[in-house]
Order: sequence, then C-alpha cells, then structure tokens
Amino acid sequence: MTKAPAPSDGSEPKTESTDDVRSASPLKYARTVDFEGPISLELGGQLPRVTCAFETWGELNDDASNAVLVCHAISGDSHAARHDADDDPGWWQQLIGPGKAIDTNRLFVVCPNVLGGCRGTTGPSDMDPLSDPPRPYGADFPRITIADMVDVQRMLANHLGIVRWRAVVGGSLGGHQAMTWVTRYPGSATSCVIIASSPRLTSQALGFDVIARNAIQTDPHFAAGQYYDQPNRPDTGLAIARMLGHITYLSSEAMEDKFDPDRHDPRQIASSFEQRFSVGSYLAHQGEKFTTRFDANSYVTLSMAMDLFDLGSTRLQLMEAFDDADCDFLVVSFSSDWLFTPKQSRDIVAALTALDKRVTYAEITSMAGHDSFLVDRDIEQYAPLVEARLGKLNEQPVTLSAVQKLVASLVPAGASVLDLGCGDGSFLAAVHDRGGVGLVGVEVAQDNILKAAARGLCVIDYDLNTGLPAFIDNQFDFVVFASTLQAVANVAELFDEMIRVGKQVIVSFPNFAYRTLREDYVVRGRSPRAPGEFNYCWYDTPNRRFPSIADVMDLCREKEIKIRNEIYFDSETQLQISPNDNPNLNAETAILVLSR
Amino acid sequence: MTKAPAPSDGSEPKTESTDDVRSASPLKYARTVDFEGPISLELGGQLPRVTCAFETWGELNDDASNAVLVCHAISGDSHAARHDADDDPGWWQQLIGPGKAIDTNRLFVVCPNVLGGCRGTTGPSDMDPLSDPPRPYGADFPRITIADMVDVQRMLANHLGIVRWRAVVGGSLGGHQAMTWVTRYPGSATSCVIIASSPRLTSQALGFDVIARNAIQTDPHFAAGQYYDQPNRPDTGLAIARMLGHITYLSSEAMEDKFDPDRHDPRQIASSFEQRFSVGSYLAHQGEKFTTRFDANSYVTLSMAMDLFDLGSTRLQLMEAFDDADCDFLVVSFSSDWLFTPKQSRDIVAALTALDKRVTYAEITSMAGHDSFLVDRDIEQYAPLVEARLGKLNEQPVTLSAVQKLVASLVPAGASVLDLGCGDGSFLAAVHDRGGVGLVGVEVAQDNILKAAARGLCVIDYDLNTGLPAFIDNQFDFVVFASTLQAVANVAELFDEMIRVGKQVIVSFPNFAYRTLREDYVVRGRSPRAPGEFNYCWYDTPNRRFPSIADVMDLCREKEIKIRNEIYFDSETQLQISPNDNPNLNAETAILVLSR
Repeated sequence: MTKAPAPSDGSEPKTESTDDVRSASPLKYARTVDFEGPISLELGGQLPRVTCAFETWGELNDDASNAVLVCHAISGDSHAARHDADDDPGWWQQLIGPGKAIDTNRLFVVCPNVLGGCRGTTGPSDMDPLSDPPRPYGADFPRITIADMVDVQRMLANHLGIVRWRAVVGGSLGGHQAMTWVTRYPGSATSCVIIASSPRLTSQALGFDVIARNAIQTDPHFAAGQYYDQPNRPDTGLAIARMLGHITYLSSEAMEDKFDPDRHDPRQIASSFEQRFSVGSYLAHQGEKFTTRFDANSYVTLSMAMDLFDLGSTRLQLMEAFDDADCDFLVVSFSSDWLFTPKQSRDIVAALTALDKRVTYAEITSMAGHDSFLVDRDIEQYAPLVEARLGKLNEQPVTLSAVQKLVASLVPAGASVLDLGCGDGSFLAAVHDRGGVGLVGVEVAQDNILKAAARGLCVIDYDLNTGLPAFIDNQFDFVVFASTLQAVANVAELFDEMIRVGKQVIVSFPNFAYRTLREDYVVRGRSPRAPGEFNYCWYDTPNRRFPSIADVMDLCREKEIKIRNEIYFDSETQLQISPNDNPNLNAETAILVLSR
Repeated sequence: MTKAPAPSDGSEPKTESTDDVRSASPLKYARTVDFEGPISLELGGQLPRVTCAFETWGELNDDASNAVLVCHAISGDSHAARHDADDDPGWWQQLIGPGKAIDTNRLFVVCPNVLGGCRGTTGPSDMDPLSDPPRPYGADFPRITIADMVDVQRMLANHLGIVRWRAVVGGSLGGHQAMTWVTRYPGSATSCVIIASSPRLTSQALGFDVIARNAIQTDPHFAAGQYYDQPNRPDTGLAIARMLGHITYLSSEAMEDKFDPDRHDPRQIASSFEQRFSVGSYLAHQGEKFTTRFDANSYVTLSMAMDLFDLGSTRLQLMEAFDDADCDFLVVSFSSDWLFTPKQSRDIVAALTALDKRVTYAEITSMAGHDSFLVDRDIEQYAPLVEARLGKLNEQPVTLSAVQKLVASLVPAGASVLDLGCGDGSFLAAVHDRGGVGLVGVEVAQDNILKAAARGLCVIDYDLNTGLPAFIDNQFDFVVFASTLQAVANVAELFDEMIRVGKQVIVSFPNFAYRTLREDYVVRGRSPRAPGEFNYCWYDTPNRRFPSIADVMDLCREKEIKIRNEIYFDSETQLQISPNDNPNLNAETAILVLSR
C-alpha cells in the first residue's frame, strides 16, 4: 500500500469523524504512568505491567470532586481537545475546553488511551516483557474486555488521587466504558454520560466487526500478528476494515449528499484500491490514512472487546446490570445512527427508569449517522445536556398558567411526579421548589428537552403514543398530564398506562363540549373553533382527539377508573366552575384526579 | 480455506436467499448456444464469441407471444425453478412453475445465465479464444455493462424465435436487466416486472461493493485474476465479499431474530474464519459455501456491471430514460429492504407515471430485507401482482355503494380517472366497463392493492399525505377522492395536489355538521357520533379531519377553487338533498365537482 497524503491541518469545521488531524506522530501532551503487575484480566489472562498514556486539562480541586473521565471510541486516543492555541484540535474539540460543556475552566478532565490501544497505553504493538527473545505481544496480547480497560483507568484514577469522578463520559465504545465504570464500581462516579452507545452491539454491527477482523487476520502480511519487524504490515486488511467501519458510521443520506453528485468522477489519490467511483477513492483515502496511524492488532483487540460487551438483551438483565449503580445518567442517541440505534438507548433508559435512577434521555435529530456524536453541528445540539448533567444549570424563569397553578395545588409537598409533555419544565420546577422529589418529565420537542434539562430536571424523550413502557407500576405518587392530551392518538391506552404508573393521575384537558364550541358548531355549521386549544382550522389542527368532559368520564367509567376530584375552569373568566353548574357545558378546561 | 460442508437438499421452505441448493455441479437442464462474434460491448471492448447457457420451462406457442424472460441476480444462475419432481428446486421456485404466478403451463419461460457469469455463459473463467498460449480471460475479461448482458439475451431471443417477450421479469440485478431491455429495445416486451431494484445503487450500496471488490482483488491468491491453474484461489477475498453482501441482504431485525438468542454460542464449522459468535460462524459458513460455487472474477465483473448501471438520479433523467419504453410495468419494493430501498422504487414509478406509462406499484410489508424477493413468505405476498401483470386476472364482482354510483354518473365515458383510495378497484372497474381509459388507482392497504391489481387495474401504493408527486399537471380528466378524505391529515395540501393533477376533481366526504351529529353533540355533550363515517369512539376514530360541507367550501374559496357541481345525499333515506335545502344541516354526504 502506498502512503496516504499528508493530513490536513484540521482548521475547517469537523463534519465527519475522520476529518481529524490524526497522525502517527507522538502525542505532544500525553503523559504516562506505569502500573506494575501482574494485572489480572477478566477472561483469565494477565499482563505483567501496564503503561497508561493520558492527557489532562484544567486543575483538580482541593477535594478532588471536579474530575471528569472522558473515554474515547475505537479509533480514538487521549487527545480529546487542544491544550493551547498552537495545539492540534482534539476529537471532541467542540465539547471540551474553556467555557465548553465539559468546561476545563472548572473541571479537571482526564482522557486516557484505552488498554489494548496503540496510542501510548499498553497494547499488542508493545513489547512483551516476558518474551524471550523480546518481541511485541502481537496477536498473543491477551483477550481483553471493557472491564479490563476500566480497571486500568481505575488505577490511573488512584494515581491521580481521584476517588469519585464528577462524571464518566463516553461515546460509542466510550459509552461502554462509562457504563462499565458505574456498574462494576458503584459509587465511582456522580454522573454517567452515555452517548451513541448500546447495551451490546446489534447482530448486524457484530457481523460487520467479524468481517473486519477476518479481513485483517487473513491479510497476507498479518504473520499471525508478528508483523512489526517485517517489511510489510497487514495494511490492506486494516484499510478494508476501516473502509467498512466508515460506511457504518455514516447515514445513507449523508453518503448520498456526499457522493451522488459526482459519482463517476473520482478524485484520484495515491492508492492501489479501486477508484472507479468517487465513493471508492474516498474510501481508499480513508483506509490508507488509517493505516498510517493505527495498529492492526489493536483494531482486532479493541473491536473484540466491544463485541464481547454485553449488559444483556432483556430489560430484566439490564436492570440487574444497573441495579447497584449509584449515579445519575445522561443518555443521548441520534436519529440517523443505524449502528448504535435510538432503540438501544431507549432499552438502557427503560432499565434505568424502572430502577428509579435519575436519568435524562434525548434522541437528537441528526443527519450524520453514528458519526453525529463527533461532528460539530450535532455536538452543538446535545452539549447543553452534558453541561446540565455536569451541574451547570440555566434555569429560565418559571411562569405557570392558571391551569398549571391549579394542578400544582393538587400535588402535596414531597410527592413524586411524572409530568407528561413537560414542556420547558416550568411545572416540575415549581413542584420542585415546593419540595417535590423523584420528579421526571416526558417530552418530545428537542428544544423543550434542552430547556427542562437545563433546569436540572430529569427529562425522557418518549412518544406518549407508545405508552409509558419505561416506568413500572405505581412508580410515582402522581402522573400529571396537563398539556396535550388531545394531541395523543393512543389516548385510551395512555389512560391505562397512567393509572398503572401513578398512584394518582391528574389529567387536564380542554372540554370539546364547551359552550362556545357548541355554539360555534351549531351556529356556523363548521368544525368547532374557539380561542384556546381548539383554535385551529379543521385542516391543520394538531389535535387528534376531541373529548368532552363527559367523554372522558365515560372512558374512566369503562375502565373502572375512580374520579377522586374534579376542578373545572374557564380561562376566559379565569374562574372555577362548580361541578354542579353543568361543567360539560360551561367549563373550558377540566382537571380530574384519578386513581384505580 | 477448508471446504464447506455438503449443501442441504433444500427440501425446507426457503427463509433466506442463501438457503438454496446450489453447488458447483453442472446444471442438469441447461442448454447452450454459441454466438459468433466479434460482439461489440458498450464500453468499447469486444468478445470474439459468446456462449449462452439457459433453461426453459413450458412451450412456446404458435405466434411466439407467450415467452417470459426471467433475469437472475448477481449470484444466481439459469436454474430458476425445477423441471421435474426429482429436480432440485430453483432460486425462484415459489414464483415459477405449473399454476404458479409465472405459470409454466401457459407460458414459455426462459432463464439465461448472464454474460460475465460463471454458470455456463461466457465469463472471466472461460478460455479466451484469442489467447496464446490459451488461458482463461481472468481479469482481462472486458468490462461489461447490463446493456451487454441484455444484448446477449437478445441474441438468445432471436435464436429461440422470440421477437417480443410477453414479459421481462427480474429482481435486484435482474430488475436492472428488465429495465435495460425496455429502454434499450422499446417494443421488445409487453410487460416489464421490476422487483427489489433501483435506477442505480445508493452510494452506500456502492461503497459496500467497492469494499467487496477490494477484498477479492487484494487476496494474496488473486494473481491478477489468473488463478485458475494455481494451487490456490482467492477464496478468502471472495468469502469476505460474500459475507459482506450477505449482511446487506438481511434486515437488522431479521439478524436479531436469528442471532441474538445464541449470540455467544457459535455452531462450529470447518473454517478458519473467526467463530467466536454465532453470527460469525454463520457468515463463515456462507462465505465458504459460496467459494465452492462462484468465481471471484465473475463476482468482480458482475458487481461492477451493477455498479455502473445508472438510469439517472433526477426525475427528469429517469423520464428521459423511460420515455420510449412501450410496455406496462409492475414495480415491487419491500419495506425492510435497506439496500434497494422503497424510495428508489418510488423514484422509478414517479418517472413512469409522469410519462403516463401503465404501472402498478406496491411496497410489500416484509421482515426479510433485500432477501424478501426470494423468500417464500414474501413471494406469496407479491406473486398475485406478477400473475395479474402477466394477464391472469381475478376479477371479483363489482359492488358500488349509492355514493359511488352517484360519483360514477359524473364521469363521462372515455374520461381518464385517478381514483384516490381506490380500495379493491370496484369504482375504477365500473368506470372501465363504461369506457373509461387511462385509469389509475392510489391505495395503501396491501390486500386492496392486490385485489385492484387482480382486476387488471394500475394501482400505485402511495400515502396521500405526501400529496401526488408521482403525477403531472392536468394528467387526468378527473381526480376522484370518494373514500377517505376525513382520514388524510395533510388534506389542505391534497386539495392543491388534486386540482393540479386533475382537470376536474370529484370529492366526496361525510358532512361533519350533519343534523344527526349536531344533535348528538348538543344533546349528549360528547364528541359527535352517528352511523356512517363518524361512527367511532372519540378515542379510536381513524378520522383525522372533521369538515362540514361549509368548511370544505370555505377551503375552496380560500384556494380559489371553483365548485362546478354539488350533489348532496342522505344514505339513511337514500335520497338526494337539494342544494337549496340547507345541505350543511340535512345532508350526510356531499359530492363536489371542483376545478381551477
């Protein structure tokens, strides 16, 4: 394989994970520390000694309470961000730095190279101290797991005087490490941030990894992993593995945008891989570039560790895995990520919520596929969530509507509340200020999720039409649905779910049989319309269901749901309507308190 | 690479494309014919001679009007179906045979091996007659295109005395061949059946193909394509290419079902590929098996031809490509096919409908990914469409409702009609019997699509919420929407689209201000309900929009749409209501005739 062209200086915005400055040159700011062994490994092997390479930013405070561990993904390294203006940017440059979401002005940030890597920490390309004659470990490097990576990181933490991380943060393989930290060592972190990750790989992703390893290990120059002193390395196999990985990191749409316009006009690069199509020369370039900076045995070692990672495939297994975790969580997925899917993140979240762990979850709308977690435009979208999880809040003033105040008055101090359609979190913030605990919001609008999270609230990105599968029976004192009942199609099923999850349910909705609407309908002979929730044209209303108070009560009766309290309200007059005063005609809004 | 285990006898139902009996043994029933050259190729090369291997079923009738050409996909061959009870099943066994959709009792079915293949037709593994000393073409086999494959098939057609195919039928690469037939040789077929195909590969699919070819061509035993007399073949590269292809043929869900339960329990097979995971040993098995029956150079040749296939990326380019085609079309896609996507099929359809070609299109709900077109369960779903396109109709009796009869009375004989939500095609069948031409139905329910197609109608599987992008301005004398206006969310946009596409629009809908509904609302104080389209509970109605007649007329006024005729109907009394008799109160159903 011919040499790849010199890397760019990385000064342009990163639109892809591979638009980095990454070279084979040593990392300028990396330090190392040696740990004497023997170090026992999870699957039974051991290492006589481990060197850990790492970089840090910021200062550790006096009580060592501001340290954040950043865990890199499969082809990453310790250089997560630049250290000064002349330094090369890092792979998470947009997230880490002075004033960034992972703020190096107030946090002490640590990013080590993983065990098994080839960027400073002990891996297959390092000399085996026990070998005679001396040679690199090569393919004889023992099979390691994510747990082994985390154990070395734990040694580093001890070395740095860190007992409890403020947060462990990682994307993809880095997310696997973060999850392993808090499950293997409960109490080792205050917050766990899991980005574009999964409880285990999908079978599809696993299949791709197997093929990649096959390509490397059948490369004619693989030499059973002892290629270091040979004239040739298994660069072809490694390049093919990288090309394959690269396609899985991109969304199909992103590839269309990038390659469709000039499909048949490849930019010729120095490579003997096929270059008939523009996507081909691009992949060839990416493959070649990768072989100049990454070791084939490392790729095999790290991908195998990722493939062995398995917290479970059922909710119960995941709950068992996370049961002892003693931290709060942020989980982020990306809509176009087909390699580490949003569904997989929701599986993690469903285990955490069932265990009553504090968790915020958002599915970020993105175009860039699995790469999204590394590209600037998408980091901008989710960085506020990381910032909030790390304790830097941005609490907008709380303004409650009259109805929200009425609902809030029904919630005693100290009660736990699940707020469905929580908007920007105003209602929950108000409940919190009055002593509420165990408060969780469900919301689908991304801007609202960010605002609610910025208040320090736990918000879950869930479509109420799917019910409340993340929560267990009687999990909350109150389930509140005071926002958009009329916009939910599967509303009857949602009633069942709310009654299942909440000891009591407070539901508020606009009354479709309200006097003004009836008059409008009868007089104008048109789809009823009135100021408020029903102030839409018949053809563009977002509302899906149009119940009157009587309709909702019929449904409760049908489902044997008890109505414990009724408050009726007219926001035109700002007055309550007595239950004896024909609220089905006279009330614009109803607030019902329900229970089994 | 060790030898794969002996293939099964294929007696179990096919749930995957690779569950075939395919072996390296010669095809028992294949015949060959030689064509003397030189044969010129599209990209400038030539072949001195071409042998074409093919199989046939059934008998060619006297006027040679019953011949059907079946085109296989990349790893297929001429053995599409068995010839007798003792014969091995073919790769499209469920579709072809006595009484099957491609009925060998009445049709003469021809399936040739493609040019460039390795199953009897001339390809890279064959001897180059001009070489001295004699050797196989190898990698010097000229670069061929789908057009070259089709030209050889045309020579075969001439040889068999076939001037015009009853149909050309193919899936995947076979679909590319079918499309090339009717665009390169207008008039060469009466029907063109395009299954799980595309106007060109997505950039993602193209990327995967490039990697596959790289794996083959960098195999240490590739020997620049002249490996035939060597002790080793490039089996590793070919196996890797096949493994990669295999993942792309499966849906992720199908892989989960197959491999998740026993992920860590691989079945050990005879292979030196990685077998740590069940998916790995499965892929190793598939890869090994493939190398016993397929030639590496052929794989390169055929995948390159597929990758070069490009009818265009814009609608105008596709229209240009299909403009001269003189046949009707059936296009079928599969919901879980992420390699040849439903969107790509819709792009083909949108070009054909814009050209006023007769086309039926369905997206079949499936779980099996790209493989769906070959697996029994999904063939059962789409076979009726193929059968109907081949002229074997199944016309259920036509029963029109009173409203449908009224609407039909508004359509003069000989008018062209687009029927939105055409159901089982009853209305269009009635219009057809009264002399209508240029009739097209739009429908989303799969069972209805099949029934309408079985009447010989052209039906397009489109979601009306996306408008009518497949059709051009003023394409039809009438656009009729007499079924489910109230179920369409984007109804205002649909009005614009109907007016754009139809010279006149006939729209029929239930009147939300109908007397009975108003009374129900006012009296019961509940979401209005009455027998007919509004006879649902408030919480499970499929209706999205609730316009009264006045509402719809307001919308027409707003959009400057002219109301040319009004018919009002009460299905309770089965009487018409006069426009002077307050139809907004007294009519249950309205039929409006609109135009610009």
